[in-house]
Amino acid sequence: MNTASICTIGDEILIGQIVDTNSSHISKALGELGIRADRMLSIGDRREQIISSLEDELRTHDIVITTGGLGPTKDDITKDALAALSHAGGYVKHAEQERIVHEILHSRGLDVLDINLRQALVPDSCEVIPNRLGTAPIMVFRFPRERFGHPATLYSLPGVPFEAIGALPDVIADIRAHYPTDRITHRTLMVYGIAESALAKKIEAWEDALPADMHLAYLPNQLTGIRLRLSVYGGDADEAERRISARFEALKPLLGEMLYAESDTNLQTVLGALLRDSGTTLSAAESCTGGMIAHLITTVPGSSAYFLGSVTSYAVPVKVRVLGVPAGTVERYGVVSSEVAAAMAEGVRSLTGSTYSVSTTGLAGPGGDESNPEGTVWIGVSGPHGTVTRKFNYHNDRIRNIERFAATALDQLRRYIIEDLKQ
Amino acid sequence: MNTASICTIGDEILIGQIVDTNSSHISKALGELGIRADRMLSIGDRREQIISSLEDELRTHDIVITTGGLGPTKDDITKDALAALSHAGGYVKHAEQERIVHEILHSRGLDVLDINLRQALVPDSCEVIPNRLGTAPIMVFRFPRERFGHPATLYSLPGVPFEAIGALPDVIADIRAHYPTDRITHRTLMVYGIAESALAKKIEAWEDALPADMHLAYLPNQLTGIRLRLSVYGGDADEAERRISARFEALKPLLGEMLYAESDTNLQTVLGALLRDSGTTLSAAESCTGGMIAHLITTVPGSSAYFLGSVTSYAVPVKVRVLGVPAGTVERYGVVSSEVAAAMAEGVRSLTGSTYSVSTTGLAGPGGDESNPEGTVWIGVSGPHGTVTRKFNYHNDRIRNIERFAATALDQLRRYIIEDLKQ
Repeated sequence: MNTASICTIGDEILIGQIVDTNSSHISKALGELGIRADRMLSIGDRREQIISSLEDELRTHDIVITTGGLGPTKDDITKDALAALSHAGGYVKHAEQERIVHEILHSRGLDVLDINLRQALVPDSCEVIPNRLGTAPIMVFRFPRERFGHPATLYSLPGVPFEAIGALPDVIADIRAHYPTDRITHRTLMVYGIAESALAKKIEAWEDALPADMHLAYLPNQLTGIRLRLSVYGGDADEAERRISARFEALKPLLGEMLYAESDTNLQTVLGALLRDSGTTLSAAESCTGGMIAHLITTVPGSSAYFLGSVTSYAVPVKVRVLGVPAGTVERYGVVSSEVAAAMAEGVRSLTGSTYSVSTTGLAGPGGDESNPEGTVWIGVSGPHGTVTRKFNYHNDRIRNIERFAATALDQLRRYIIEDLKQ
Repeated sequence: MNTASICTIGDEILIGQIVDTNSSHISKALGELGIRADRMLSIGDRREQIISSLEDELRTHDIVITTGGLGPTKDDITKDALAALSHAGGYVKHAEQERIVHEILHSRGLDVLDINLRQALVPDSCEVIPNRLGTAPIMVFRFPRERFGHPATLYSLPGVPFEAIGALPDVIADIRAHYPTDRITHRTLMVYGIAESALAKKIEAWEDALPADMHLAYLPNQLTGIRLRLSVYGGDADEAERRISARFEALKPLLGEMLYAESDTNLQTVLGALLRDSGTTLSAAESCTGGMIAHLITTVPGSSAYFLGSVTSYAVPVKVRVLGVPAGTVERYGVVSSEVAAAMAEGVRSLTGSTYSVSTTGLAGPGGDESNPEGTVWIGVSGPHGTVTRKFNYHNDRIRNIERFAATALDQLRRYIIEDLKQ
């Protein structure tokens, strides 16, 4: 099996001002080829550290992929370090990349500056994959066996996530052309509505019976619940698929309606498919989630086919005037109540004429009181067969509470719609 | 200066299923002490790799901070690896952490299982900082000079971001008590509405005149624009602050109204302060941004003081019925038009009675047509002195376009309100 190391270059990551999301995308793409990324590394914009760290990674890996440090500004020194590392004789202009630089800047209505044109200069020791989404080309350095004890390749990608992800198909094609690729077989089940430790207890006997070459991982996430990922490294791919499927079939009865998908996806995508396939529509009335539910739903391409709209009613008068929540209901039961959640869901459903609706009213924090501590939320779901509400309590900070409230609302909606469509 | 290495442990990061956000928080906290994180590393759930990688990091750094691999499930093996690395004689129960495990599970209405109680067992070679937010304690391993050639400390933190961040103040206090701490002086200006290369060109002369011990970084981000960070390592802190301030004062006239803050913040926080300080209120009407503007605004604690609410009008009838956009305007000018943006902003302002309002109508993609290609948005802002609209074009994928649209809307709103408050 070939191994890979993924390195991000840039002080902005080391000092914590930027979170690295590129490595995750690169690793997933390598995994599809059966190439295992066994290290990820972040280093700073320091020439000597870049050179020595990359030499270390090249000594211990077949493939090293770097991102970052290729920007037009003076703090970006990766290209210079790579020229030194690869004993380049000088820089050459790459005509196709220069053409792209002109094209990109013109389309944005910007002047082409000298610092932009310098982006099309590359060390004469590398091959170039043009970057069609940005000004810095992808550089490929191939090192012979003598240099690091084995043939090694270094791919240098831009740091801008959009450009790095856009360059990946070309990089993967180059790897596929130069390396024998093995295979890792993964499959994932998506589960919502149970804590990680409770899930582990629930499926303990099943997990203990897994053979030694299968690896189970629990991957909890605020917005998607728990990913249960079963992996087999190497071996025949079809056989591995069959063995994983058989294990998952035995697991599914234990998961019941907490299981919401059998591939790596999320609640809003599953919910969108339910709505599209049944020709139904959706609206939302959000208080404490402040737009997060609508935002999640509309991240799905094509969501305009089933999502009519939403009202974020942060202020009480908006609940009363726009959603038609009776002022007396707010007064009698308080804003954070089953009654207000129900009236909000019914109000937005009637306002938009949607088949289904969902509502939230609660306290994301900071702050709360005895009857409704911080982290309390009432979720309402309304549809052709009536309105239901349910209360949940979480124990997080403001942003995590908002995320949990929104994800739980999507999950409640999913469960309601599945039941409703059976009727 | 003391150096630190930050290591995340877990296959979920290496295979790209999870993005590591902990390292960024840890690095920022170390930076405040003047401790430079000069490497970040991610490794998998493999005992031998954990041990050898951590030994390497301990040999080359004073402080190593790990996160992850401490969960209750069988794929979490960090504790076992740390016991081996530190030559532990066995495991001991930590009474305070066991009490917390009981407390946390009870508050969530869960049974206390054996696998939960195992969380309170720690190698006898470590000191413990109790984790009040989760079940896995923070472990501190102190290695004498003989072991790695210098005194070294390893802190093992849980991987759950909420718990890792919660543990940081105690870890920082421990570091402060055991290490002489130096200082890095950073200051940041926040800029919105210009491309990185254009900004670099604009301030080139100023940047070229910076002394050698000052380091400028450009940190572009979809949602916050460009952070311009000026750093000085070491030296007298007050003197460094004064020198940075003098440089920034010379830079500010070049930035004009693109400069929106003089500390590391974001548009929604700056906008919130403007509204709160002027006693004014805000509402939003969102089409293509689908709730993202309301979500960003309500991530700010206390936003209920000035944010009344919003309408996400994804479907045309919602624009007409709820926001009062004339059906004839949609027909004549099309949904993506200056006229509809203006009518949406005015409609939501009159619906909620807010002082100001903002609207978006555009195409996040995928898809578009000749007159309105993918990435086109009209933004409207309305207030006591009238309504203005402006068109923007971006060239990204759906989610990045949504983010840019929403951030640009917040920036347009900020510029409008600043002008409006002068009148």
